[in-house]
Amino acid sequence: METRDMLWSGWGDPAKAAPLPEPVVGLLRDLLGVKPAAAPPVALDAVAVPASRLVPEDLGALAGAVGAGHVRTDAETRVRHTRGKSTPDLLRIRAGETSDAPDAVVLPATHDEVGSVLRACSERGIAVVPFGGGTSVVGGLAPRGAERFIALDLRRMDALIELDEVSRTAVLQPGLRAPAAEALLNERGYTLGHFPQSFEWASIGGFAAARSSGQASAGYGRFDDMVVGLTVATPAGDLDLGRAPKSAAGPDLRQLVLGSEGAFGVITSVTVRVRPVPSATEYEGWRFATFADGAAALRGVAQDGPLPTVLRLSDEAETMVGLADPAAIGGASSAGCLAIVGFEGEPGEIAGRRAAVADLLRAAGGEPLGTAPGDTWAHGRFNAPYLRDSLLDAGAFVETLETAAFWSGIPALYEAVRAALTGTLSDAGTPPLVMCHISHVYPAGASLYFTVVSAQGADPVAHWAGAKRAACDAIVDAGGTISHHHGVGTDHRDAYAREIGPLGGAVLRAVKERLDPAGILNPGVLVPPATEE
Amino acid sequence: METRDMLWSGWGDPAKAAPLPEPVVGLLRDLLGVKPAAAPPVALDAVAVPASRLVPEDLGALAGAVGAGHVRTDAETRVRHTRGKSTPDLLRIRAGETSDAPDAVVLPATHDEVGSVLRACSERGIAVVPFGGGTSVVGGLAPRGAERFIALDLRRMDALIELDEVSRTAVLQPGLRAPAAEALLNERGYTLGHFPQSFEWASIGGFAAARSSGQASAGYGRFDDMVVGLTVATPAGDLDLGRAPKSAAGPDLRQLVLGSEGAFGVITSVTVRVRPVPSATEYEGWRFATFADGAAALRGVAQDGPLPTVLRLSDEAETMVGLADPAAIGGASSAGCLAIVGFEGEPGEIAGRRAAVADLLRAAGGEPLGTAPGDTWAHGRFNAPYLRDSLLDAGAFVETLETAAFWSGIPALYEAVRAALTGTLSDAGTPPLVMCHISHVYPAGASLYFTVVSAQGADPVAHWAGAKRAACDAIVDAGGTISHHHGVGTDHRDAYAREIGPLGGAVLRAVKERLDPAGILNPGVLVPPATEE
Repeated sequence: METRDMLWSGWGDPAKAAPLPEPVVGLLRDLLGVKPAAAPPVALDAVAVPASRLVPEDLGALAGAVGAGHVRTDAETRVRHTRGKSTPDLLRIRAGETSDAPDAVVLPATHDEVGSVLRACSERGIAVVPFGGGTSVVGGLAPRGAERFIALDLRRMDALIELDEVSRTAVLQPGLRAPAAEALLNERGYTLGHFPQSFEWASIGGFAAARSSGQASAGYGRFDDMVVGLTVATPAGDLDLGRAPKSAAGPDLRQLVLGSEGAFGVITSVTVRVRPVPSATEYEGWRFATFADGAAALRGVAQDGPLPTVLRLSDEAETMVGLADPAAIGGASSAGCLAIVGFEGEPGEIAGRRAAVADLLRAAGGEPLGTAPGDTWAHGRFNAPYLRDSLLDAGAFVETLETAAFWSGIPALYEAVRAALTGTLSDAGTPPLVMCHISHVYPAGASLYFTVVSAQGADPVAHWAGAKRAACDAIVDAGGTISHHHGVGTDHRDAYAREIGPLGGAVLRAVKERLDPAGILNPGVLVPPATEE
Repeated sequence: METRDMLWSGWGDPAKAAPLPEPVVGLLRDLLGVKPAAAPPVALDAVAVPASRLVPEDLGALAGAVGAGHVRTDAETRVRHTRGKSTPDLLRIRAGETSDAPDAVVLPATHDEVGSVLRACSERGIAVVPFGGGTSVVGGLAPRGAERFIALDLRRMDALIELDEVSRTAVLQPGLRAPAAEALLNERGYTLGHFPQSFEWASIGGFAAARSSGQASAGYGRFDDMVVGLTVATPAGDLDLGRAPKSAAGPDLRQLVLGSEGAFGVITSVTVRVRPVPSATEYEGWRFATFADGAAALRGVAQDGPLPTVLRLSDEAETMVGLADPAAIGGASSAGCLAIVGFEGEPGEIAGRRAAVADLLRAAGGEPLGTAPGDTWAHGRFNAPYLRDSLLDAGAFVETLETAAFWSGIPALYEAVRAALTGTLSDAGTPPLVMCHISHVYPAGASLYFTVVSAQGADPVAHWAGAKRAACDAIVDAGGTISHHHGVGTDHRDAYAREIGPLGGAVLRAVKERLDPAGILNPGVLVPPATEE
């Protein structure tokens, strides 16, 4: 199966680019002072990449591992594997800035070929960046401190290896993109139920390596909750983990691989729980007077259940702008805060669950808005990244970040992050609109997902670096985790070091040194350097 | 709060000793050839312990860490901290065999005192065995290769530190015994909902260190599912983990501490999810024609839910002997297989869940037996360990072991373990009765809990060692995990090494060497030695 390439300079398929609704353009102009950008992206064939630093012996060793046809050094392939899809990544690549381009792109077809590549690279001191969907927004694909590196593109490992219908588990290869995985499972009557915003492009291996969390996590669980087994190729050998859903036999080593972002090894297969394809889906909208009221209602559902399959709540600003429902901007439904509540399953089971959830939401002050807002959300659930491309074209800056905390810490965390973003960007002369939603709930806490829109200003990458640093500090100081579903990468590494403390960092280094003694795997990503101690 | 001591030579409180029902005595005699034991346990004051190998400077250093009054070297205290509560442990201690007695028992009162003890012991080369409830049944309290060691009894750290009613979390100290933790939470209207068979004696720290799983795990989750935060004192410093219920920021280091069995550090506080005390409980019995039928029914409930709070199924042998319902031995309910299905919550919520589960069980061939078997089970749920004392007194050998696997592997695993136990013990001249139940279910798999009863024979410890080895091999060969809720300890270490493979063992050693460079923490427990590579 040939895997499609994303738009090199943005998100996804240019054919799906979403033009900005006129009210949004007006809002940008009037509220944020956004002016149309001067320069569109440079043309792909005009983008130059630095000369590959691999010597013929290096390329020969790699060809020996995967076959010469699967070692690519052409400019287009290298450009397409340069960095990820954060807004600073897009701004740099739109300007033709390719300093982080890999020296080659290597495409293994099997677990053993991955092992051969890792051994060859360990011997030759070539860093290796595992590459799934290429959708990292935290600098996970731009290593630091590597003299030369390859992108290890796993797209050829894209099979459904096994479906165990008794245990309801499936063994998936890491390079399977999520839509292909769903299609393969759907043919057999099953679904993974994992639908993050990056769904159209992200890969199974990436979901595991970055602890992805989908929009239906309330019902299907986070990706790390779905994983019951993993095989991993490391420079030091192989790991084969997971003999039962749960075990009391020692630490759960699966949980050490999940979230390891390619720094410990390359995930070569993932065994996941699957479920029958639901025969019915119902998405509905609810309105709450304030974000605090809505959050309390979501907390009540998370703690006293049953849970819907999808449960999210936009704050006043996000509701007003109507990211959740662009068609309703300026309409009656823009007052207060919009919640989306979705159910997937069998019709009878859904009916009971929906009634119980409705009782809880109504008792908490919620006003039902019917299915129209829910259907609108479901229809547009993967559109936000396309919208970002349009906003960048229109001269706006837009970026997201997210965190999670225990419920009692959520209000202070929300205020601290908003204040940090608003303060720094206003000081930089680009006052932002900061919007937020709760996208995932647990009995003990929830995630907060922020979207920031401002004018680009003179140097949007530098402006954002300052704002992001302030937001990260605010998150750590307020007791939140630095990421609920985007991961650590290089962007969050310093904040992550504070989160886990010096001894936590030392534990990660001890594991990495044992599995990757030459330090070739994703250098600079995730693992705090020893100087943090 | 003064913590009670367990019966030094058996389980729990002698006043609760359960006399064997006459039918059981007859069954033991007629079926297994059990003859009354020759010798009752020796008297406690007649038990000698080896001289402590600690020198005055050692004791002075420990006294400096915790105060002289909290360093105990008297014989009774040392006997009471000798090994755990496996049947071989009991047989040895009943015979006055104290070769594994700690050289001293040290009782810290704070996190900082734990750290001081660990540093003093690291400097002096004294091994440290963290001691909570003392209920290990896998050799977790008998270190190997230590010239001298202390038991670090955490009973003075027995406070409820904080209850966060918004997040529904509680911070508990590790030495809190489970009933005391429940009492402290119940006063405030909450429950932990963790009721393993060791409930009456086990500690919060032990639950976390050994990944305990309670009888109500279907409803409340395993203990490791409940933990959202941990603080740990290690010889190399402190860990403070858990800023949110879930995070995408790197590997979940909590899951590296959970199950670490004192080999990486000493857990000094545990933050757990709590729930409101249920206002209603309903336990009922169901009968299935065969264990396979019942297992299929439980699988259906686990996969298509909703789940009851308690869900367990005895096989034909266990149902016949009536461990689940001793009053019914020989009665009508002894045919087929008995399942216990329990519900805890609010009456209205329970009613809906109970009806949905009943539909699933009835459709799977289950016959409802009403609440009598459920109430009998609930009444006697913590009695089995007392029954073991009575069986040992009566000359029988009884021991348990457990495993878990994916559903598709359960039938072969069940047969393999039964065959291994029956074969080896029959060959040794003590043919056993092997019983089993499913005690915990997941969408993807389940646990199997085996109980073995036989005559003691000439050397029951040696007989059992051979049978246990064969059972462990059978579990590993059949693809099961070596423990679903008892842990690894010293008894399962070799099988665990096979389960996680040489590189998995190397990862654990790397973590241990970083956190415990002097190798003082529970040597010989959990972590496979390097020679396994």
